[in-house]
Order: sequence, then C-alpha cells, then structure tokens
Amino acid sequence: MTEETNDIEKKVENMTTKNLEEDVVNPWEVASSSDKGVDYDKLIKRFGSSKVDEELIKRIETVTGKPAHHFLKRGVFFSQRDMHQILNLAEQKKPFFLYTGRGPSSEAMHLGHLIPFIFTKWLQEAFDVPLVIQLTDDEKFLWKDLTLEEASRLSFENAKDIIALGFDVEKTFIFSDLEYIAQSPAFYKNMLRTQKLVTYNQVKGIFGFDDSTCIGKISFPSIQAAPSFSSSFPQIFNNKTNIPCLIPCAIDQDPYFRMTRDVAPRLGYIKPALMHSTFFPALQGAQTKMSASDANSSIFLTDTDKQIKTKVTTVNKYAFSGGGTTTEEHKEKGGNCDVDVSYQYLTFFLEDDNRLEEIRKTYTSGELLTGYLKKELIEILQKIIGEHRQRRSQLTDDIVKQFMTPRKLKFDY
Amino acid sequence: MTEETNDIEKKVENMTTKNLEEDVVNPWEVASSSDKGVDYDKLIKRFGSSKVDEELIKRIETVTGKPAHHFLKRGVFFSQRDMHQILNLAEQKKPFFLYTGRGPSSEAMHLGHLIPFIFTKWLQEAFDVPLVIQLTDDEKFLWKDLTLEEASRLSFENAKDIIALGFDVEKTFIFSDLEYIAQSPAFYKNMLRTQKLVTYNQVKGIFGFDDSTCIGKISFPSIQAAPSFSSSFPQIFNNKTNIPCLIPCAIDQDPYFRMTRDVAPRLGYIKPALMHSTFFPALQGAQTKMSASDANSSIFLTDTDKQIKTKVTTVNKYAFSGGGTTTEEHKEKGGNCDVDVSYQYLTFFLEDDNRLEEIRKTYTSGELLTGYLKKELIEILQKIIGEHRQRRSQLTDDIVKQFMTPRKLKFDY
Repeated sequence: MTEETNDIEKKVENMTTKNLEEDVVNPWEVASSSDKGVDYDKLIKRFGSSKVDEELIKRIETVTGKPAHHFLKRGVFFSQRDMHQILNLAEQKKPFFLYTGRGPSSEAMHLGHLIPFIFTKWLQEAFDVPLVIQLTDDEKFLWKDLTLEEASRLSFENAKDIIALGFDVEKTFIFSDLEYIAQSPAFYKNMLRTQKLVTYNQVKGIFGFDDSTCIGKISFPSIQAAPSFSSSFPQIFNNKTNIPCLIPCAIDQDPYFRMTRDVAPRLGYIKPALMHSTFFPALQGAQTKMSASDANSSIFLTDTDKQIKTKVTTVNKYAFSGGGTTTEEHKEKGGNCDVDVSYQYLTFFLEDDNRLEEIRKTYTSGELLTGYLKKELIEILQKIIGEHRQRRSQLTDDIVKQFMTPRKLKFDY
Repeated sequence: MTEETNDIEKKVENMTTKNLEEDVVNPWEVASSSDKGVDYDKLIKRFGSSKVDEELIKRIETVTGKPAHHFLKRGVFFSQRDMHQILNLAEQKKPFFLYTGRGPSSEAMHLGHLIPFIFTKWLQEAFDVPLVIQLTDDEKFLWKDLTLEEASRLSFENAKDIIALGFDVEKTFIFSDLEYIAQSPAFYKNMLRTQKLVTYNQVKGIFGFDDSTCIGKISFPSIQAAPSFSSSFPQIFNNKTNIPCLIPCAIDQDPYFRMTRDVAPRLGYIKPALMHSTFFPALQGAQTKMSASDANSSIFLTDTDKQIKTKVTTVNKYAFSGGGTTTEEHKEKGGNCDVDVSYQYLTFFLEDDNRLEEIRKTYTSGELLTGYLKKELIEILQKIIGEHRQRRSQLTDDIVKQFMTPRKLKFDY
C-alpha cells in the first residue's frame, strides 16, 4: 500500500507546486485550477465531447414523449458523445442498452453516488431499454488497502443500495467483476481483445500511470471497457453482438471511455455513446467533490433523520451557506445561491421547477431566510433517504442474487 | 501486429549490433553470444539457480526408489531451485504437485516440445503426485497474429498431443486459460493478488517490455504465476491451499517464476520449486533452438516415417552432421559427437546408456559411419512418433474434455 499512498501524495504535491494550469479530472483525482470549481465548458472542449444543448433536450422529449429529467434541464448531465445516434436508434425502434457502474469502496453510498443511478433509471424507463451495472470490486482491491473478500462484500452491499432505487429486475443485470469475469468467457475475451490493442504508452497518457504503477492497474481499463460491448454478455443479450451502448456517468470516468471508443472500431464494435454529469458538491462547498472517506463531507444513505438535520443545519461547520451571517444582514443583502450548498442540493433533489425558482428568487432577495431554505432541504433529504432506507430493508439476499444472475432480460432483440 | 513485428525486429537488430555480451534467454528469445551455443553454467550463475549435481540425482533415486531418468543423468534437466525442499516433503510423505505448461502456438508440436512433458510424466510417476498443465492460449493471442478462436482450437489440439504421452486422467488436470480463468474465481483472484504486487518497472526489468508493449502482455506474467499456488485450483486440491509446487520447464521460462517466487511470500504462499531443462537443438545445429515456425528446423509429431527419414538423412541440408564428408575421411578422422545433431538427438531419445556410450565411442573413432548413426536415430524417432500417432488417433474429444474438467484428483490431502 505504501507505493499507492506515495502515488497519491506525489500527485497532491505536484498539484500544489505547479499551481494547476488547468482542472485535473480523471477517475482518481478531481482538482480545480480556480476557486470557482471545475470549469465544465472548458472540459467539454478539452475532452472533445459535446454540450447537452436545448436542441438535444427537446429531441429527447420528442423521441421519448416524456418531459426531460430535471438533471437535463438544470445542466447536471451537461456533456455527451453520440447522443443523436442513440436518438436515431430510438426513433427507429432499434435496440440499445445502458451501462453504468460503481467502484464499491465504502459500505455506505452517499448522495453523490446516487446521481448517475437516478438518471440511469430515468433513461431506462423513458427509453425502455436493458441496463447492465458493473461493480468494479477488482478495481477497488487494486487501488485501495482492501482484501478481495472485503471488496466482494462491499459489492453486495452497494448492489442493495442500487436496487433500492427501484430498478426493474427483469430489465437490469448487476454484476461484480470478481464474480462475473470468472463466469464469463465472453467478457474475459473482450478484456483480452482490448488489452492487445492498448499500449502502456497510451494508458500512461490517458490515466497518468507511471513506471511504479502495478500491472493490475495498468491492465484494468480493459475491464471497464468490456461492458460497453454487448458481446460481453451473451446471456443478457441473447447472444446478440453489437447492440449499441449508452453510458451515463460522471465526467471523471470519461478517460476510460475515450480509450474504449478508440479501440471499438478496431474490434469491429460500435463506439459507446455517453452522457456526462457534473460532480455533486461536498457539504463544505461547491468547488469540492463529495468524498466517502470524509464522513462530514457527505450525507450517506445510512444517515438518520437526525444526522441529516445536523449536517445540513450546522452552518459553515458542515453545509456551506451563501446566506447572510445575521438575519438583518441576510434581509438587507440577500443570499448567494451560486455558493450556497443547500440551494445546490435542492437543484439536484427538488423536482418542482416552479418551487425551485420561487426559492431562488426569495433567497436571493433576502426574503427567504437560510433556516427555511435548509428546512426545506432537510425535509426533502429525510424523505428520499427514509424511503430508500425502507426499500433497502425489504431487500432479501435472494433478490440481490436474482439481479446478479446472468440471464436473458425481458427484451426481444 | 505491426507493433509486435517491429518489436521483434528491433530486438534482433540490437542483438546484431551490440554483438551480445552475454546469452539472451527469456520466454520470447533465446540467442547465444558464442558459436558454441548457450553457456548453461553461466546461466545458472546469472539466474541464481542451482546445478542439478550428482548428490541431488542420487537423492532423487533414494527418495523415489527408482533409477534417475536419463534426462537427469545426461544434463538435460541441469538447473533447479529448492529441489531439496521438495525431496524433504517426499521423504516425509507430505504432498506437493507438479505444474508445467505450453503456449499452443502451432497445430503440431515438435520433438522439443515433448521434453518437459516426458520428464514431467516421469516425475509424476516417480513421486506419485498430482499435475496441472496450463495451456496459455491467451498468451499466444496476445503475442501472435492469432484470433481467440484459433488460439482455443490450438489448445485443444495440443492437449491431445500431451495426453497421448500417457498421462493418468485421474491425476492430471489440463486447462486452457481462455476456458479456466472464466470458470474459476480463485484463479482470477490469485492473478489480481499478483498484479497488485508487481510494478511496470519490475516486469520491464524481468521481461524486457517497453512503453509500446500492449497492456495485455504487461499483466500476462500474473497468469503464468497463478498455477504455482494450489489455491488457484480449489476443485483439484479439495480446497487445500499452500500445497507446495514443483515446476519442470525449459530454462527460458525461469523469468516468470523468478517473479512468482518474489511475490509468493508476500501473499503468504510457498515459493514454487523448479527444474530447468536445456534447449532441444534444431536440426540445423546445436547452437539453435527448434522453431515451430520453420518446418525444416524441427521434427513434428505429425511427420510421417518418410518425412522423419528425409529430415534426418539429408545431411547438412537438414540435420547437421559431425561426421566426415567422405567415408574415407570419416574412417580416418572420426566423427564429432559434440556438434552432430543426430547424436545429440540420441542423447534425448535413446534410453539405453550402454548403447549410447558404444555409439559415442565408435562414432568418435570413425568405426561407426554417419549413415548407421542416422539409421539408428531414424528408427527410434519413427517408433516414438509412430506410437504417439497411434495413441493420439485413439483419443476421443470426450477423453480430452475429461482431462480438462476441473475436478478432485485421485489424492488424499
């Protein structure tokens, strides 16, 4: 583990000394070059992706016949690759599938972890398509000070949290790498095909590996690539290969899929399409990303109503506020929604557009006090997490195993 | 493939220009720095292994109660690691197992490929121990211009050749990586454990990889390491972990196992012991290694009696001779056994020590003519390959599948 700790320290050190000329965004590190947080427009240019614009959002509404998810309207899913091709397929009633995933590094998932899954669920229902969810327990074993047994256990616990969001077992396959790779020749073969086409030089450039990186990490990107190809799941897709794939994920996962999209045509496969989300801010401020390793930076799915209340209300110690320091000051100067974490959280979890706009206006003018804003957020979070807790407690191991069994899903191809 | 071809060309070029200060011996390249061939004594010093000496051979005879195999007496298996520890176990009737393997790169195996298997079979019978045989079809896919389907097919064909040597199905498990890794969580877990402990720097140093090497090759050594650990085969060893392992192989495979022995204690595993063989010479001369890609450098298990005869008799065009150019010259000056390939082959395949010594004496003196020496070799090879052909033709696919099914072997642990 010493080597890895050094790795991280080295990165942090480099960052501080070189004073970051641009934002750093990769699967293991997110750091901003300014105190305004990550510049997402610049990221789109650098990564070569496309903006989720009004036209695309309208087309999604037309094709699905459903109002756009508020994550689309509010810029949470802000970037994409090849989404118009996916919409072409949907228009022609041709099949595609969704792929998302999670590295099960901690027992309890936090609110930020939910974002891609909430949106994926909406996509699945709006387009009525199959979904595969990868739990990269092998990745976490390689990167963290974790045994394989512990990584496997976390996969199972995290699967429960994901299932509790309400996914349809007939249309969803959840798999742990440690289990599925050792069950599926097709998956291992796609890993090997990818590994043959990608050099050390390439992963060094894409992921920032260096010569002291272990060989497991070096070949791992092939494991994240494999689920993009439907041929990795013969049971799920009834042996149909080349069903196109759409990957909803946070933007820090894009390096994996830039590599995958580079390799796909050389394997005779279709490039996966992508939808990228911004980062869910930590309680301490919008510039930072929530971290499961700091209990106070996040609200966890296991938090009690009281813990949620404490974390949100303990102003500035926990949830960063954009309100005035006194009621008088607030009424006079108004609140600043752009930096207020409670308001930011409402943009993620308050679905009612009108109510959100009302809050924004009255908070900015100073009419709505910080306490009321926080109270509204606390109620919403207590409801979401309470319902989640309730649904999770009803999940038996058998249901989890059902989701995790390779099988044909309820689709005709 | 272009990248790989360039790789090899680069190596060859380097070799020629720097005029080799020492022999090059690794899994993908064997080249000698002198025209006398590889200096095996120097190799023992460089690799840090031990000589197979008289004392060890006597001890093997004492412990097994059997006369030593002629490969031991004639220096074919010339180097070892930890063999005395294996003999200690055998003396105490404690279990160990044998592990050897093959990269199935060609349809037909040649005589040289048989050497480790012939010796492994003798070891298995002399010590009565279980044996696992790895067919690294994934390696061949990564290194050669081969599809996965073709690599799998070659595994199956090569398994037939190996089984035809007479291995006991109740004591032997043969597996293809492409099949078994996707069947065995335990094997994949040991791959990952090894991958976590080995850095790119290390495999660069051990195997000569460079930055343009594909990531599949970089992580492959972990796949060759895994069978050294009995925990990779829970069905075979009845879930017993840490049963010690002895690996008979050609000396060019040692880099894999130097790495494995370095990693083993850090995983809480026992280091595998080794016995190393010299290289089987090509027909063109003792300095060179047989190559399956040059049909005329080798005698194949598929060769007909006529082909064997032609390859051995067509003097100097095919089998390099150490005899005189005319009968008169030969009778006057005698033959040179040290460079005569037919004589070298007899040291591998003529088991009768007395007859071999008689041939050596009379050939050296000039009494025995080249034609008679070759005739004796032709008869022996026709018999060996004829019997092999016969046994192979009787093998059904079902028998091969039986060998390749993970199952408990006939041993009590």
